[in-house]
Amino acid sequence: MSDNNMEKMRHSLAHILAKAVKDLYPQVRLGIGPAIESGFYYDFDSLNIKEENLPKIEKKMKELIKQGITFEKSTVSKRKARELFKNEPYKLELIEEIKGEEISIYKSGDFTDLCDGPHIDNSKEINPDAFKIDKTAGAYFKGSAENPMLQRIYGLAFETKKELEEYLKNREEAEKRDHRKIGRDLELFMFDEEVGQGLLLYLPKGGMLRYLLMSFAMETYLENGYEIVSTPHIARESLWERSGHLKFYKDDMYGPLSVDERNYRLKPMNCPFHVKMYKSKKRSYRELPIRWAEMGTVYRYEKSGELHGLTRPRGFTQDDAHIICVREDLEKEVKKALEITRYIYKTLGMENLSFKLAVRDPNNLENYFGDDNSWKEAENCLKKALISFGASDYVLDEGEATFYAPKIDIDAVDAMGRSWQLSTIQVDFNLTSRFKMSYINKSGEEETPFMIHRALLGSIERFLGVYIEHTKGNFPLWLSPEQVRIIPVSQKSEGYAKEVWEKMKKEGIRAELISHGETLSKEIRNGETQKIPYLLVVGEKEKENSSVSVRYRGKDEGTMDSSKFIERIKKESRMEKFKG
Amino acid sequence: MSDNNMEKMRHSLAHILAKAVKDLYPQVRLGIGPAIESGFYYDFDSLNIKEENLPKIEKKMKELIKQGITFEKSTVSKRKARELFKNEPYKLELIEEIKGEEISIYKSGDFTDLCDGPHIDNSKEINPDAFKIDKTAGAYFKGSAENPMLQRIYGLAFETKKELEEYLKNREEAEKRDHRKIGRDLELFMFDEEVGQGLLLYLPKGGMLRYLLMSFAMETYLENGYEIVSTPHIARESLWERSGHLKFYKDDMYGPLSVDERNYRLKPMNCPFHVKMYKSKKRSYRELPIRWAEMGTVYRYEKSGELHGLTRPRGFTQDDAHIICVREDLEKEVKKALEITRYIYKTLGMENLSFKLAVRDPNNLENYFGDDNSWKEAENCLKKALISFGASDYVLDEGEATFYAPKIDIDAVDAMGRSWQLSTIQVDFNLTSRFKMSYINKSGEEETPFMIHRALLGSIERFLGVYIEHTKGNFPLWLSPEQVRIIPVSQKSEGYAKEVWEKMKKEGIRAELISHGETLSKEIRNGETQKIPYLLVVGEKEKENSSVSVRYRGKDEGTMDSSKFIERIKKESRMEKFKG
Repeated sequence: MSDNNMEKMRHSLAHILAKAVKDLYPQVRLGIGPAIESGFYYDFDSLNIKEENLPKIEKKMKELIKQGITFEKSTVSKRKARELFKNEPYKLELIEEIKGEEISIYKSGDFTDLCDGPHIDNSKEINPDAFKIDKTAGAYFKGSAENPMLQRIYGLAFETKKELEEYLKNREEAEKRDHRKIGRDLELFMFDEEVGQGLLLYLPKGGMLRYLLMSFAMETYLENGYEIVSTPHIARESLWERSGHLKFYKDDMYGPLSVDERNYRLKPMNCPFHVKMYKSKKRSYRELPIRWAEMGTVYRYEKSGELHGLTRPRGFTQDDAHIICVREDLEKEVKKALEITRYIYKTLGMENLSFKLAVRDPNNLENYFGDDNSWKEAENCLKKALISFGASDYVLDEGEATFYAPKIDIDAVDAMGRSWQLSTIQVDFNLTSRFKMSYINKSGEEETPFMIHRALLGSIERFLGVYIEHTKGNFPLWLSPEQVRIIPVSQKSEGYAKEVWEKMKKEGIRAELISHGETLSKEIRNGETQKIPYLLVVGEKEKENSSVSVRYRGKDEGTMDSSKFIERIKKESRMEKFKG
Repeated sequence: MSDNNMEKMRHSLAHILAKAVKDLYPQVRLGIGPAIESGFYYDFDSLNIKEENLPKIEKKMKELIKQGITFEKSTVSKRKARELFKNEPYKLELIEEIKGEEISIYKSGDFTDLCDGPHIDNSKEINPDAFKIDKTAGAYFKGSAENPMLQRIYGLAFETKKELEEYLKNREEAEKRDHRKIGRDLELFMFDEEVGQGLLLYLPKGGMLRYLLMSFAMETYLENGYEIVSTPHIARESLWERSGHLKFYKDDMYGPLSVDERNYRLKPMNCPFHVKMYKSKKRSYRELPIRWAEMGTVYRYEKSGELHGLTRPRGFTQDDAHIICVREDLEKEVKKALEITRYIYKTLGMENLSFKLAVRDPNNLENYFGDDNSWKEAENCLKKALISFGASDYVLDEGEATFYAPKIDIDAVDAMGRSWQLSTIQVDFNLTSRFKMSYINKSGEEETPFMIHRALLGSIERFLGVYIEHTKGNFPLWLSPEQVRIIPVSQKSEGYAKEVWEKMKKEGIRAELISHGETLSKEIRNGETQKIPYLLVVGEKEKENSSVSVRYRGKDEGTMDSSKFIERIKKESRMEKFKG
């Protein structure tokens, strides 16, 4: 079925929903009822139905569908429409907002709706097994808190029953993978109203996960010729004026705070600091390329309604870096950044990447810094780098450039097939001249360098949010905050358990030892709920032959010599990390 | 000589300085001239003498000293004093400020000064070889910018010539070790007016040094049963009200910034966040002790005049941790923190520590939270931990407790014998009850835990400032940002140099390769100025037998097989770090 036909069918289901509700509860008053992605909804006043009574409505809808309800369009005058909907105050309000005198309506038996259509001809076209009344929620009329709150009933609708079932299964899976839920279950992070909305507190397990991830990223950059720098979280407004942020990025920035009668701002980006460091002395072409990396925590304002766990917080840490180079090295450096991106994501088990080239909105060129030729040159350079890297299937994304530069955005596809924009690589020729950055070239002349902004994990927080959903909290061994949990079967075995634990700690394995208390089966269940990769059960039998009983991610792997186990886990941890 | 006598002598030298200046430049008008630490000064108006002419004054003073100038005290009426100093407007102003009618003056020959004394009897008591005119600087009359700027002449004075020479030598050494100077020379860090006063930017070498130091500290904590957490840099004012910071610590905090019409503050401490995390679920005695470590960057307001490089910035990172435990574990945990402190400082080569027990100011008990008994208990616990740790020679420091807790402050003594307060370990029973923290004890009852605040390096910045002065920039190999620099003797040797470099990089050695350009001797000088531990000179001769010519911290160590050198440096790097 075409998208168009699907939408007609969903829209018609909305009408059938309204008719069913009116048949069952004549007192209700109608809001609106459109088709939406995956289904439809309708808003009602004075309905007050509980979730558990929704099947009643669904049953009624199925009856109506079987009856072969028709959808007949006609046009009436505004006066006639007012007459038709005289008992529907919301419809009357909508009629007054329609320009012109002709009003389009749809009739289905004794049910009439204010509607432009289109619709299907007859309800028999609908597969009664491929739709489902889903849930109910409150919704303001016309989306405004100044209007009355109506009750919205959501329905799902597809062409086939199989599609519906697949959708429900996917949704259930997505809920199970919701990083906010896993974050709570695994005690990774939390928010607190008194600290402030969107401000993350990493609990010990999440803190370790973040530390390991950042260390991996930073070590990777250092191995690839980057250097590490560190800059403050605030700077004077004059810096943000010079950088253009106060002109082009103000809405995303926090308000000012005053120090010694001067206004400061929390940093939304790290770039101007790196520029300042570059400018701290005369530079020669011999020093270039400079590659400066910083785990820089930035603060950006998000509306409170848009906050969403780790993927949309108000403060986050970028694995940020700036590469300052001569024109001739630009393409090579972009390509190298693409390669490091591939290595990092492969190592993390996210090999499915897609590439977008984000350029200016051709209809709003005034929203960008700098001259046309430079933009074209930078865009061209990114394009060439993408092709030579092997991503000639990139997508062109108009209007998605930053205010100072075009960029490559990289999406990673997760285990559920969802795309997440994570990495960004930008070529910048604007900040460099705005800040009068220069170097002495081979001929002894001053020249303006180019700058590449790149964040490969992007935001550590956002990446972790996506990654938790991708892995369902089953992190690879080398990233697991707690790699091994040692469970003594009785108090008597605690001594041996401690011995094993100490041996592991000495080898740098992140092992935890619990003291005997709960039943063994409960401890195993706990460990598995908390997604600890290895659970080691140790009792007197294990003590006798210096062994451990191994459970790996829910699977019993039998007994193993404890030293051999240590070797195994050390090897696995290394292998996983360096398979990239 | 007693301090008292020394002060009399220095004060008398100030008078002799004034007399000498008046003899040489009768037009000058006198400000004031007291004794200070290590010497004395006198302020003059209309002097305008240049640094190079100071010896003339010193010579004149020596003549006066030899003449046997006497110091005779007398008391005159205010009217008489006004008459005596009628040509000295600054003295006249001072006379008006004196309460009562009696004015004390000192006469030395034809020179009279407004002065309470005491003085020596005769200038012959002064050792003319043990004093020296030091320098000149501007100083406002009575220290206020609203008054005229006078010219201050500083002198140094000791009992013996040897003491003077020692002082000068020490001072010269301290200037060479000044971390701000070394920071510039080694390109470790910088400040920038447009970013903001006291806000640090770590250049790549400093960034690496900081990263290595923080990694060492964090790894040490993790090995000792700490967990890693991470919290935001801002929080709502309501949190700082609850924690008591807005009441007791406001002057040290930055002004508010507004988000969604709520006021937020930059964090001056990390504690309230850790408290929030503790309170995120019910806790049992089985979970305690909890030890949470965070490299937390805090911002504290310092007056701009008090800023001083790394040792007094406005933003710094604490190697902060909070230990939450039951009463019975308190002493043990404090002792353990003391032991980790000793390990860390020993590893860093600062073994000379001294301990202070900071308690409340007995005369201002209203400046502190909480009840008397709890304070006494906490103080007693710290005392017992100090003794069992082996620091029974601790010093009692009254009035130095924080507003919420007594503490142990630990001073490290640097290579010049100077003491620096760096570590702090605080026992807190106030925040825990203020934030209603609790745990379920063995009997199933709710109880309030204790909290230890501890920062062992203290502030990473302050520590680095001290450490740079302690080591003079000669960092141990494992902390050196650039461990090895490879210098090819000619362009022809660049290929082999690169081979050696790649081999080192593969082994994780922080080696830099420079391309041939400058003369060999200049490159060696550069490397030594930048305090690179190992300089490797490689040419065709070295290539032939796969060797390198080694210079270690200024000393030629001859030729060595390159693989053997790699083994040596790897071993040295490990040994140094783990000798603690």
